[in-house]
Amino acid sequence: GHENVYMPMFIPESLLQKEKDHVEGFAPEVAWVTYGGSEELEERLCVRPTSETLFCDHYKNIIKSYRDLPKLYNQWCSVVRWEKTTRPFLRTREFLWQEGHTMHETAQEAVAETEMILNLYADFCEQKLAMPVVRGKKTDSEKFSGAEATYTIEAMMHDGKSLQAGTSHYFGDHFAKAFEIEFQNRENKPQTPHQTSWGVSTRLLGGIIMTHGDDNGLALPPAIAPIQVVVIPVAQHKEGVIEKAQEVKERLAKLFRTDIDISDNSPGWKFAQYEMKGVPLRVEIGPKDMEKGQCCIARRDTGEKTFVPLTELESAVQKLLQDVHDNLYAMASKNLEDNTFDMTSWEEVKEMAQGKGGFARTKWCGSLECELAMKEKAGVSSRCMPLKQSGTEGKCVMCGKPATTDIYWGVAY
Amino acid sequence: GHENVYMPMFIPESLLQKEKDHVEGFAPEVAWVTYGGSEELEERLCVRPTSETLFCDHYKNIIKSYRDLPKLYNQWCSVVRWEKTTRPFLRTREFLWQEGHTMHETAQEAVAETEMILNLYADFCEQKLAMPVVRGKKTDSEKFSGAEATYTIEAMMHDGKSLQAGTSHYFGDHFAKAFEIEFQNRENKPQTPHQTSWGVSTRLLGGIIMTHGDDNGLALPPAIAPIQVVVIPVAQHKEGVIEKAQEVKERLAKLFRTDIDISDNSPGWKFAQYEMKGVPLRVEIGPKDMEKGQCCIARRDTGEKTFVPLTELESAVQKLLQDVHDNLYAMASKNLEDNTFDMTSWEEVKEMAQGKGGFARTKWCGSLECELAMKEKAGVSSRCMPLKQSGTEGKCVMCGKPATTDIYWGVAY
Repeated sequence: GHENVYMPMFIPESLLQKEKDHVEGFAPEVAWVTYGGSEELEERLCVRPTSETLFCDHYKNIIKSYRDLPKLYNQWCSVVRWEKTTRPFLRTREFLWQEGHTMHETAQEAVAETEMILNLYADFCEQKLAMPVVRGKKTDSEKFSGAEATYTIEAMMHDGKSLQAGTSHYFGDHFAKAFEIEFQNRENKPQTPHQTSWGVSTRLLGGIIMTHGDDNGLALPPAIAPIQVVVIPVAQHKEGVIEKAQEVKERLAKLFRTDIDISDNSPGWKFAQYEMKGVPLRVEIGPKDMEKGQCCIARRDTGEKTFVPLTELESAVQKLLQDVHDNLYAMASKNLEDNTFDMTSWEEVKEMAQGKGGFARTKWCGSLECELAMKEKAGVSSRCMPLKQSGTEGKCVMCGKPATTDIYWGVAY
Repeated sequence: GHENVYMPMFIPESLLQKEKDHVEGFAPEVAWVTYGGSEELEERLCVRPTSETLFCDHYKNIIKSYRDLPKLYNQWCSVVRWEKTTRPFLRTREFLWQEGHTMHETAQEAVAETEMILNLYADFCEQKLAMPVVRGKKTDSEKFSGAEATYTIEAMMHDGKSLQAGTSHYFGDHFAKAFEIEFQNRENKPQTPHQTSWGVSTRLLGGIIMTHGDDNGLALPPAIAPIQVVVIPVAQHKEGVIEKAQEVKERLAKLFRTDIDISDNSPGWKFAQYEMKGVPLRVEIGPKDMEKGQCCIARRDTGEKTFVPLTELESAVQKLLQDVHDNLYAMASKNLEDNTFDMTSWEEVKEMAQGKGGFARTKWCGSLECELAMKEKAGVSSRCMPLKQSGTEGKCVMCGKPATTDIYWGVAY
């Protein structure tokens, strides 16, 4: 039910400054446009690092009554944050994302939206990207600038580092008050609406690479692979081979994103090429297969080869794509489980962080002091307080005081 | 067969400057980023006004052999041009577009691509947007900066002004030489490839508004209307009316983009609302219609109402949507024909330009001098030399010398 819209990429400095926490968080990392052609601008414009201020400026003009709520918007665009250290796909100065922005009558409704979206992101990562995630809440110090609560999904890469893979923010009415957004409620009285925003970005591509990739290149989850199956003729100069391969390709193309490579490169070169590109399944067919009425299907994830009668081509491919997904998910889940450690002392956490990495799950007293000490002493940042809390009591990993909050620590990209 | 890609939004000043004509054309109208956070940048970055330079920088790295050609790319993004005078949708500093960029082995192949795309744009405008266009070539002075030839489609708005609705450029090898792009040809010799680029933008939205809109608001062509049919219950408090309207909506939603409005606004308010939004068809249903087993369908373009038996609902809507398209196209074509005038003197052209506007079709000797004189004296710019040339000889509209070239003049947005 969300509506796709597009807001400008430039935000006047005065607009960015309307919400105090927000500008403090973002102003140090925006790109400033100061000239239009050869003329210096009277007011600097920043290239949007995120669009809350633009949406609030719009809400102010269009939200008058409870009948106008909820407003449910989504925008596809790129944003810029002037990062000092960059890393392809994981931390880039410009990145593509979708940013959702919503306004609601009540706090309850806005919180429900924030949580609904977080679960939607998590389900997408798990069911489509085969990337298991921990669903949780950020600590106050790791929240989005201006948010009342930030929900997050955290994934573990195969090198033991953690990746913030998507966030969903509940703003309460901070921005609405700063922007003087008010509506007439059901009792005909002025009321301030409650806001959310949420986003996932091209960082997810980095997540896919660092979750499933190996020394031979990409390994793409079937649900999002641009090419799900590639057909490669073997001994293609022999009579009828290319024709047969084309026939196989056309049958598969009706059901799957299928490509064929009949270039004059060698089969071995092609095998390596599509392995590197992460294509989940490769169908090989040559003169011997044709005699036997079969083809050979190779999986990118395990390298396993199966000979399949051509009469069962489609069902075999269907099943193998599901198997590839299930196996990628199982391997990533194992990596997450094997590298999540319950710990009780910060020294242990430090050892983990300096060693093979992973998540340390500990108790935390909730103080900023202990959180900062974990960064300084153990070299980890708080990743999230998982939504599923055990409820048991233990000792804060830093100060040793009694605490019930479960929290994940890790080294993040 | 074109591949969707995404290039950065920032272009370093040194990269923009690589092709002489290109930088001269665009440098005066770009937005410059000079600060990242609080630090002044060593080299200014411009926000892309178009992406030829970025694509060329990429081509240089990836085009090595004739086997790498053609390269066929498309990018969806926004670009910025620091226009002095702006007008919503028609001339905005930031606009959304698609920009295609291709590289080819031969000039012939590149020219064929340029023409193919122009025809694709023209067909799209006519068949989907119900907006007839003149297909032509720009004069040298109106070409894209750096292009060897610019092809264009020009549409006429209902106020007699002309709109450049899409362009397709043939670059020859100018950029390729400036960027030192070379490939090994089929004879194993180094060769320079030939380039094209082409784009249509959100300006087409302005075109739709100014072609089909009227005093009651938008009138959207059915092929691109986000809502093709809106169902509005009449006397919806009466028993069974909302249920029946829902049923009608669900039947239609299987085939068409359909919405329903059961809010407590009056039917009259809703009629006006969806008229303003340009929804092609409105289906009304009330207690009397239910008794007769019918509904009433109103057309946005003509206001005409038809009573339709519910048994024929889907086929009637299908036919009426086609009728709306055909009528919108016919009205726009009539406007184009009625306001295209064959003229022989610049004084006539001036009178037209100062009066109700339109296209003046004249002969032109081909000199820049006469073209500039038309701008100064008659107040019109050259729109295009139509692809369909009559081949007849006449006198240049400005200098009176013998000329065969047909050319369109008009006042453009």
